[in-house]
Amino acid sequence: MGKTEIRTIGKVSLDVKASDQPNVHNRWHPDIPFAGTIKDGETVKIECLDWTGGQIGNNDSAEDIRNVDLTKIHYLTGPFEVEGAQPGDLLLVEIMDVQPFQDQPWGFTGIFDRSNGGGFLDEIYPSAAKAIWDFEGIFCTSRHIPHVKFAGVIHPGILGCAPSAEVLETWNRREGELIAANKLERQVALPPEPTNVHAGAADADGKEKVGKEGARTVPGRPEHGGNCDIKNLSRGSKVYLPVHVPGAKFSVGDLHFSQGDGEISFCGAIEMAGVITINFKVIKNGVADLGLKSPIYIPGPVEPQFGPGRYIYFEGFSVDEHGKQHYMDVTVAYRQTTLRCIEYLRRYGYSDYQIYLLLSCAPIQGHVAGIVDIPNACTTLGLPMDIFDFDISPSGPAKALDMGSCAFETGVTEGKVTAGGKNSEHSFGGGVTYKGSVADKVKEAVSGS
Amino acid sequence: MGKTEIRTIGKVSLDVKASDQPNVHNRWHPDIPFAGTIKDGETVKIECLDWTGGQIGNNDSAEDIRNVDLTKIHYLTGPFEVEGAQPGDLLLVEIMDVQPFQDQPWGFTGIFDRSNGGGFLDEIYPSAAKAIWDFEGIFCTSRHIPHVKFAGVIHPGILGCAPSAEVLETWNRREGELIAANKLERQVALPPEPTNVHAGAADADGKEKVGKEGARTVPGRPEHGGNCDIKNLSRGSKVYLPVHVPGAKFSVGDLHFSQGDGEISFCGAIEMAGVITINFKVIKNGVADLGLKSPIYIPGPVEPQFGPGRYIYFEGFSVDEHGKQHYMDVTVAYRQTTLRCIEYLRRYGYSDYQIYLLLSCAPIQGHVAGIVDIPNACTTLGLPMDIFDFDISPSGPAKALDMGSCAFETGVTEGKVTAGGKNSEHSFGGGVTYKGSVADKVKEAVSGS
Amino acid sequence: MGKTEIRTIGKVSLDVKASDQPNVHNRWHPDIPFAGTIKDGETVKIECLDWTGGQIGNNDSAEDIRNVDLTKIHYLTGPFEVEGAQPGDLLLVEIMDVQPFQDQPWGFTGIFDRSNGGGFLDEIYPSAAKAIWDFEGIFCTSRHIPHVKFAGVIHPGILGCAPSAEVLETWNRREGELIAANKLERQVALPPEPTNVHAGAADADGKEKVGKEGARTVPGRPEHGGNCDIKNLSRGSKVYLPVHVPGAKFSVGDLHFSQGDGEISFCGAIEMAGVITINFKVIKNGVADLGLKSPIYIPGPVEPQFGPGRYIYFEGFSVDEHGKQHYMDVTVAYRQTTLRCIEYLRRYGYSDYQIYLLLSCAPIQGHVAGIVDIPNACTTLGLPMDIFDFDISPSGPAKALDMGSCAFETGVTEGKVTAGGKNSEHSFGGGVTYKGSVADKVKEAVSGS
Amino acid sequence: MGKTEIRTIGKVSLDVKASDQPNVHNRWHPDIPFAGTIKDGETVKIECLDWTGGQIGNNDSAEDIRNVDLTKIHYLTGPFEVEGAQPGDLLLVEIMDVQPFQDQPWGFTGIFDRSNGGGFLDEIYPSAAKAIWDFEGIFCTSRHIPHVKFAGVIHPGILGCAPSAEVLETWNRREGELIAANKLERQVALPPEPTNVHAGAADADGKEKVGKEGARTVPGRPEHGGNCDIKNLSRGSKVYLPVHVPGAKFSVGDLHFSQGDGEISFCGAIEMAGVITINFKVIKNGVADLGLKSPIYIPGPVEPQFGPGRYIYFEGFSVDEHGKQHYMDVTVAYRQTTLRCIEYLRRYGYSDYQIYLLLSCAPIQGHVAGIVDIPNACTTLGLPMDIFDFDISPSGPAKALDMGSCAFETGVTEGKVTAGGKNSEHSFGGGVTYKGSVADKVKEAVSGS
Repeated sequence: MGKTEIRTIGKVSLDVKASDQPNVHNRWHPDIPFAGTIKDGETVKIECLDWTGGQIGNNDSAEDIRNVDLTKIHYLTGPFEVEGAQPGDLLLVEIMDVQPFQDQPWGFTGIFDRSNGGGFLDEIYPSAAKAIWDFEGIFCTSRHIPHVKFAGVIHPGILGCAPSAEVLETWNRREGELIAANKLERQVALPPEPTNVHAGAADADGKEKVGKEGARTVPGRPEHGGNCDIKNLSRGSKVYLPVHVPGAKFSVGDLHFSQGDGEISFCGAIEMAGVITINFKVIKNGVADLGLKSPIYIPGPVEPQFGPGRYIYFEGFSVDEHGKQHYMDVTVAYRQTTLRCIEYLRRYGYSDYQIYLLLSCAPIQGHVAGIVDIPNACTTLGLPMDIFDFDISPSGPAKALDMGSCAFETGVTEGKVTAGGKNSEHSFGGGVTYKGSVADKVKEAVSGS
Repeated sequence: MGKTEIRTIGKVSLDVKASDQPNVHNRWHPDIPFAGTIKDGETVKIECLDWTGGQIGNNDSAEDIRNVDLTKIHYLTGPFEVEGAQPGDLLLVEIMDVQPFQDQPWGFTGIFDRSNGGGFLDEIYPSAAKAIWDFEGIFCTSRHIPHVKFAGVIHPGILGCAPSAEVLETWNRREGELIAANKLERQVALPPEPTNVHAGAADADGKEKVGKEGARTVPGRPEHGGNCDIKNLSRGSKVYLPVHVPGAKFSVGDLHFSQGDGEISFCGAIEMAGVITINFKVIKNGVADLGLKSPIYIPGPVEPQFGPGRYIYFEGFSVDEHGKQHYMDVTVAYRQTTLRCIEYLRRYGYSDYQIYLLLSCAPIQGHVAGIVDIPNACTTLGLPMDIFDFDISPSGPAKALDMGSCAFETGVTEGKVTAGGKNSEHSFGGGVTYKGSVADKVKEAVSGS
Repeated sequence: MGKTEIRTIGKVSLDVKASDQPNVHNRWHPDIPFAGTIKDGETVKIECLDWTGGQIGNNDSAEDIRNVDLTKIHYLTGPFEVEGAQPGDLLLVEIMDVQPFQDQPWGFTGIFDRSNGGGFLDEIYPSAAKAIWDFEGIFCTSRHIPHVKFAGVIHPGILGCAPSAEVLETWNRREGELIAANKLERQVALPPEPTNVHAGAADADGKEKVGKEGARTVPGRPEHGGNCDIKNLSRGSKVYLPVHVPGAKFSVGDLHFSQGDGEISFCGAIEMAGVITINFKVIKNGVADLGLKSPIYIPGPVEPQFGPGRYIYFEGFSVDEHGKQHYMDVTVAYRQTTLRCIEYLRRYGYSDYQIYLLLSCAPIQGHVAGIVDIPNACTTLGLPMDIFDFDISPSGPAKALDMGSCAFETGVTEGKVTAGGKNSEHSFGGGVTYKGSVADKVKEAVSGS
Repeated sequence: MGKTEIRTIGKVSLDVKASDQPNVHNRWHPDIPFAGTIKDGETVKIECLDWTGGQIGNNDSAEDIRNVDLTKIHYLTGPFEVEGAQPGDLLLVEIMDVQPFQDQPWGFTGIFDRSNGGGFLDEIYPSAAKAIWDFEGIFCTSRHIPHVKFAGVIHPGILGCAPSAEVLETWNRREGELIAANKLERQVALPPEPTNVHAGAADADGKEKVGKEGARTVPGRPEHGGNCDIKNLSRGSKVYLPVHVPGAKFSVGDLHFSQGDGEISFCGAIEMAGVITINFKVIKNGVADLGLKSPIYIPGPVEPQFGPGRYIYFEGFSVDEHGKQHYMDVTVAYRQTTLRCIEYLRRYGYSDYQIYLLLSCAPIQGHVAGIVDIPNACTTLGLPMDIFDFDISPSGPAKALDMGSCAFETGVTEGKVTAGGKNSEHSFGGGVTYKGSVADKVKEAVSGS
């Protein structure tokens, strides 16, 4: 009598190439074979690789971030059959716990090079950079961003049920139209990509089909959730996921030790491999009964709580860094909000890249404030003061500390801010800084001119 | 010995036309004369009209909302001289309290007609509507949205210091360029507007100048804050405002008994007249010392707290209601998120307009989630379960209650949803519903086709 | 149409002697006449005197505290008839708001002289002392305890329904037995006291009867609540009160701007006159249906929130200051816990009396920890760090600041602690300090010898 | 490069008798040999047995609880040398995490038989009983107390540094005097006990000395902390512990998955074996610098948060269940408060023993309210509503559910309450219930007569 260890399903190995492991896959497709079966009502542990499948190392260079192969991502564990689940049902997924592997107590936050992945601020910060985080229980620290320690809001970046063939077709058509109409100088969506496709335990034919049709895992999508990157979907959360195929074909991955709202640097959470413990329940006919077109969730009770008065909130508006007025553009407003925070923290001696990394992964609150007062949308970003081991409250000129450096790609070093008297003066070190002509762009942008 | 009543400055009257009152004004301009003087370190009470200056009545018709004169808004109290404040300083504004007038314990939430103001969802909900809220201490209820009661996050929608002539010129140029380039079928910004300008105690020449040059109070702006509509800027908050002119010329108004993140229906907070108690401190050279380009704030300790697990979070993505994929558009995503919540609550018998009003003014949390996963931005909206007096937790088909109706403009009535078995079925009553061809648009939109 | 000002019932005057006002009374008795009638479901405002009825002044002497006449207390407003309430029902009392009078924005915290009232630590701190607090909106500060500012958990110390004749008889018998058996050198309970009895609008006969039989208002009592001094019974709380007589005869008073758990100095809250807004509902047969023998309550959502990590928790055990081991005595343990906090804060330059006052009235958390581990009960006291304007976190020797002095009774001055190098050294000034032989007792006690 | 697994120190085995394991001990004594060495600044994992050393099984009988051998408890892991720690220093212990063993995901809550251990309510509930709890991530449930699920406030019940010889002598003298003076019919303290003493790696002489002089681990003590049973000393907490001997000799144990304030049934937490991750720092001269006589702590940021309005608070006073008035007795008041909660929950079909178990281990809040209003102390107990899967809010007669039964000692079964119409009627099943004459006592007590 008595409960014994919780069953682990979907085991993975950190010593085997991700693409050789049958329990993982890196595309959404209804034909990827089941990686195991879960009972309605059962709680299981599911092991997950980090989202890149091990491409990034625990070292002091961002060369691996620079050269990450994005055709491979994200490696998800699954898909799992949940007994009794049918299209139109909801899968109630309760996240009982998320943990890093005991013998791998570390994770990484990356800024992708603008030409390979990019991120929310890549026009200003185009180079690849990285911070390694060490985990000790609920807390993390980084040798690349000193004087910071915080409890993670640990969560999976991605979970969802497989699309049906119809849903998949909708996705491919919808995103294809966006790609076809694109006039920007950057990628706006990712079409199916046969290169490096991994279809789990599928045979060659299956794999080929998945490669041709399978949706990329990068975006979240309204019909099933997927890569929502919702930081508060942490321990204790209940998520209600629409089921599109018999057995649900549930997959999960992209575990984050912590993330800020927006996950702004794209590889911006503290990415890690680990184990998630989930309870599964099927709610028959739930999609119609609850009136859902997209997932909903209820947060758990153990999020880190700092108290409302322990945040500094920055405000941003839809006037961009070049002084141009945009019409009600929340995206522009949130970008400005993050820049305001960078300017504030820069005074303490952090480099902009360090702050960009920190805002990506620390438990910052990103709020929509006013979005009806033409032409300016207003957003706010709440920075918890208590993650710093020095006082950052707004009380006069800042004293710059020795903040070391984050990891950079080869050939890039970052100058240091000269804080103290003149907070807006920014000198970008000697010799080589940021690549080529971008340096000027950076200077211009951060000085707001 | 002993403290006596706190000094009131900037008195207003609810019985006199707003435009006849010297302590209020409705444009931002450096030449509007001081309405009084406040000492550095002093705490004062400041009286405020509601933002429309009394155009909206406590009744059961939205005809006044339909016909609101937007050239008159917002009536702010001020500008006040803060002794010693100079350009480059920060004005530290601590909000000690906000209260409605004791003999006016009510407020209103409006949905503007699409042709006169509009709002975040005006393509779907184009008609004018209104809810009146009764205040009893910290709580409010509405005869127009039954089965709901909540504690307000009471706050001023607008506060800020006057722009300098240079800043004002920047605003007018910047917004003028947007207007000039506009190709949308709607107003994108509001240029200076002499009609109904009110320049406080200015003489005729001054008034004329303010009418010609004065910036509209509608948008918040990065240089000074203004109409930020940040709901958490409530009792106990400290706001750090850049000073642009000698004496600061601080103004405040647009008091809200409560508001949801986004204030989505534009007239979306619970708008009220009342009194705000503020402590003022000047931080010399604060703009440079703190590295600020826009205001920052620290929330107070008495926000209503429901507990993280007492919210239902809805998820939305940048795929619009017509199935079109947008590129990383947070605005589109947040609109979808609100629609998901409307669809959920509609099952309980509320009309869509009632929910639209409710989401505008109740303490909902609007979060940026993932904004780097091309092409889909993801936002979330947290709806507190405990503002309802019935159980809205996700647990099966909803039972529709008799929810009465919000107030509408003449000639418009709203059909009722038939909840129960088929949650997505929407019948729009008999005879007249929504105006003309819009009805079809609504049906189409809300059914997601 | 439209709501107007909320009805005020039970008006009081600060300019008329409390004993001459028909809406107040200072004993619990079923025969005190109704002071007004409230409808089932109605919300009303009720005005309240401070608990002493105005005996304490806004000045810098504690002579009034020293000489307070305790036969007069507490002056409660009521009793009110609630229509339809009958014995066996519950009165659901929802506290919509509590406010000081606008023209009296101040309150007081007192330490009673040991020989006239005393308090939790009166063996160690026997003299009368006082702090005056100024209110500005939600915040308070005191010239007698500098470097402290906090938001009040504003609440009524006393509310309850009148006892029936039977309940009253039980009280008098029960407490009379305790008095009869008393062998301590101090008063253990207060029998009915005709001196200074005030029976509201009762005629002479009624007043005489109330004087002879009426229960003192000092203790809370299980059957009806009364003087519970529960700090969290603040804005938004719902209290369920047993009804013992037809019409309920509800009374309320002893308003507190703030209080710490325990209200340790007896006159320990920030005592004030003011207005409480209450909604009343009758729950028929509620006492039996809910299985209640004593009141229960549900706190409101707007308590000041500091975040769990912003408290320093002190631990105390049932070993007294003389080194004597007590058996599982939570009272002894909590006294030790408060002494530990006094010793900690003393290092910053506060006098022990200032800290004793502060712990009485600031929002400190007093918790039962372990109470089963013989022989030591353990309690904890949580001190919020953010009520101080300097850093009190545990990080090395403290730097003493100039903390001025609280008000004392005539002839008593308090020496200052010499903080800095030797934190446990305590010098009690020159000449006269504490009265006579007590000084030695104090020295002995605080040094823990 | 890169962090690898955190070092585990003080390993234990669940398959070897506790008394045979050199890393554990069950008395406080300065001569117990070091079980390992920790660097100043180091983070380590420490394994712990459950406090009984494995005496209690995962089964449906409380016979093991009935017969628990209390001379053996508590088995603590340690003592550890912390490099550099000297008497007068503080040991700053930061709890990075606490986890059950992965292959032992369960714990137990026990009520001791009155004749062997007893507990806070043993005069009313004298029989042994037990509940087994299953862990799934942050949550626990029990087959013995259905319809309940909650996130644990996981913590160590015991941590502290070894006493010096002088401190130990003080303890023995102080508690010896209490024992000598005892006139109660129950044990009031536990003197040194050679039977079943376990002195870790001590040799025979050392063990004999420890048996003769070693302090029992049952009570917390002011000089070092020890068995404080403070529920909020959970993940992320920082505890400041006085050091009394060179190297500190730190020990830890008695891990709790969860506990309510008071831990009222003595074996009242959810007792478990597991692993605690701790960071150690030495604060030189900290005892004097911080003015500490007892430990202090700062809670971590991840306590379960329900929101203030999600608790029902029960009130209790120092009038005991026989109607006797006690003088300012917080212990009596808290006992009454727990009884009020039992009476309330009983209506839903739970037996009193089930509730007694639940209040011991669930995250209930026990507060000191008013402790100066003679003769009645008032305490409150906050019961979180959201740990139940049905609605327990106060809203009319309760509907009793089938609540099964907790485990009992042989020969004892518990009758069921008949809830519904008559909430105060209590029928104790048929045949044998509670042992002998106690049954009447129980009936009498719970009916309050």
